[in-house]
Amino acid sequence: MHILVIGAAGMIGRKFAESLVRSPLPGAPALSRLTLADVVAPAVPDGLSTPCETMTCDLTQPGAAERLINGQPDIILHLAAIVSGEAEADFDKGYAVNLDGTRSLFEAIRHQGLRNGWKPRVVFASSNAVFGGDFPDIIPDDYILTPQTSYGTQKAIGELLLADYRRRGIFDGIGLRLPTICVRPGKPNRAASGFFSGIIREPLVGLEAILPVPETTRHWMTSPRSAVQFLRHAATLDLDRLGERPNLSMPALSVTVGEQIEALRRIAGDKAVALIRHAPDEAVARIVAGWARGFDPQRALSLGFTTEQSFDAIIQAHIEDELDGHIA
Amino acid sequence: MHILVIGAAGMIGRKFAESLVRSPLPGAPALSRLTLADVVAPAVPDGLSTPCETMTCDLTQPGAAERLINGQPDIILHLAAIVSGEAEADFDKGYAVNLDGTRSLFEAIRHQGLRNGWKPRVVFASSNAVFGGDFPDIIPDDYILTPQTSYGTQKAIGELLLADYRRRGIFDGIGLRLPTICVRPGKPNRAASGFFSGIIREPLVGLEAILPVPETTRHWMTSPRSAVQFLRHAATLDLDRLGERPNLSMPALSVTVGEQIEALRRIAGDKAVALIRHAPDEAVARIVAGWARGFDPQRALSLGFTTEQSFDAIIQAHIEDELDGHIA
Ligand SMILES: NC(=O)c1ccc[n+]([C@@H]2O[C@H](COP(=O)([O-])OP(=O)(O)OC[C@H]3O[C@@H](n4cnc5c(N)ncnc54)[C@H](O)[C@@H]3O)[C@@H](O)[C@H]2O)c1
Ligand SMILES: NC(=O)c1ccc[n+]([C@@H]2O[C@H](COP(=O)([O-])OP(=O)(O)OC[C@H]3O[C@@H](n4cnc5c(N)ncnc54)[C@H](O)[C@@H]3O)[C@@H](O)[C@H]2O)c1
Repeated sequence: MHILVIGAAGMIGRKFAESLVRSPLPGAPALSRLTLADVVAPAVPDGLSTPCETMTCDLTQPGAAERLINGQPDIILHLAAIVSGEAEADFDKGYAVNLDGTRSLFEAIRHQGLRNGWKPRVVFASSNAVFGGDFPDIIPDDYILTPQTSYGTQKAIGELLLADYRRRGIFDGIGLRLPTICVRPGKPNRAASGFFSGIIREPLVGLEAILPVPETTRHWMTSPRSAVQFLRHAATLDLDRLGERPNLSMPALSVTVGEQIEALRRIAGDKAVALIRHAPDEAVARIVAGWARGFDPQRALSLGFTTEQSFDAIIQAHIEDELDGHIA
Repeated sequence: MHILVIGAAGMIGRKFAESLVRSPLPGAPALSRLTLADVVAPAVPDGLSTPCETMTCDLTQPGAAERLINGQPDIILHLAAIVSGEAEADFDKGYAVNLDGTRSLFEAIRHQGLRNGWKPRVVFASSNAVFGGDFPDIIPDDYILTPQTSYGTQKAIGELLLADYRRRGIFDGIGLRLPTICVRPGKPNRAASGFFSGIIREPLVGLEAILPVPETTRHWMTSPRSAVQFLRHAATLDLDRLGERPNLSMPALSVTVGEQIEALRRIAGDKAVALIRHAPDEAVARIVAGWARGFDPQRALSLGFTTEQSFDAIIQAHIEDELDGHIA
């Protein structure tokens, strides 16, 4: 089996590739080839025994999508994206990567399939940001998508395209509305949601973190581990079980910033919590206020997607995976 | 006030333009200029006193959108589209007109606005076909859009783009999910919904009509009169009242084909009904089965959109507007 990961230099793509070193995909043919692609050079994970090639290419360039799929992989994980903050700041870039990039990938698959009947599985990383504005505290699976950011709009369009191409038999596919990933490792990125991770990640290593929103802010989060688990499950799940609706809200935890902070206090003490500096930022608060606070992801749960049961478990996963089990 | 109608040679566009001869838009500045555009040469309505120019141009051609908006109209009615049957049969053409055409119009407006601050009102003709598959008999305003046709997908994407461009302040806008229009005058077109009109229109003039679906088929319909009324209302409504969700399901009647036929019998007798020939067509039935059967369009009703109260009234409107009040 040949897997192509687009956006493989990103946080989730990298962790997905690393997971293949530790354990094969359950119930799937053995991995015979891995292709890692990104506009930034992706790294081959340490210890990988499968033949692996990397491609550095910009999905928005003419011919890039055709080059990416040239090896006719069995499974394509499409994770490449411009994140929310940047897509809001740069209208053209967000639409170019998140909409046109996605469409050119789908079109390249269609044209190759028309030539020789090739029909891969596409796993598309959508986002909770497809929901926006005046929604209930707990969003059901059949709730309307009314994004209040350009990023969310582009992801919602990606979902619609995925569903239509799948319905047409061009590829098999599934779209995962990923919750905000917390604790995101590494440096802060330009996602407006960055602080949800920052207020945990930075204090755990003795650094100050900035909190731009009130502690009452409620949000829907899961760990990088769970996100990788979602992708692994989506790569092997029987997609006929999706029926007519291939895009799914993923399970996660609905927690407030205050609850995050109390979990941090239980695990790392008052000293860690004291490193969180409150610095209200209207622009960030406005974007976040338009984001989902909770879901009732019945379809995903019934299809076997799972997540952590407490925010303490999310912090513990971070300490195990990123800090070798130690805190400052 | 200057109005541009794109898709003005179409059924609804033509009727909208004709309505301006009979009565000015209520509560709006006087019409000073009308521009009618279509890939087919649009007709200037008889008796129009307002200066009116016509443009024959294909929205999908490079530079076409820029030419269309060159006169910087105050209101743009975007009605141009490839209808459902054709968009399903011709993948490329449907996406080119319904998605790329719409986007190039919105982009042309954005670039002109960046140059001089021009900010028109855009009225976008969406469709009930944005809903699909496994939905309730009565679809609420906050129900998820999961189209089961490429046409519906393209309209749903148009809605998302409209909402994002409006949110960004690029234009003011409203999207109207038009019900199936019945009785559609003139020749049958390639919309898969054509028979809903055919079974009334043809028998009223003594011609045979073909019914490809069972009489139990339930659908959501309104008259061309109401559709024109929706556009007129959308052209003048205070759009701030829309809040964050500018796309609305329009009011209509939920009727079965059997109820349509009984209304025809009441108005034109058994002789007319006898002209309906049952000829089941799997392909049409499959498309129609994925369409909405009824709505609870509370938002549109609260904003003042109205429609007929019975299917008899819809047939009477057709007889008055298209047959000079006479039936065969
Ligand atoms: N992390 C989250 O909280 C979260 C939440 C919801 C959805 N998602 C989605 O999941 C996916 C992966 O998320 P992530 O956290 O790993 O994001 P990331 O930003 O770390 O990774 C995205 C990758 O896409 C690459 N990319 C951007 N433009 C490209 C282009 N033109 N051509 C090729 N590659 C390009 C970037 O270089 C980057 O490596 C993204 O689609 C993201 O929108 C993430
Ligand atoms: N009539 C209905 O039942 C119904 C229902 C729901 C939505 N709608 C929508 O309402 C709008 C108007 O409907 P209608 O019944 O008048 O449709 P129509 O087919 O009569 O009119 C559409 C017009 O768009 C024009 N057009 C197509 N491609 C074009 C291009 N590339 N450039 C310029 N013009 C182009 C066509 O020439 C045609 O005159 C359409 O967007 C349609 O999708 C109609």
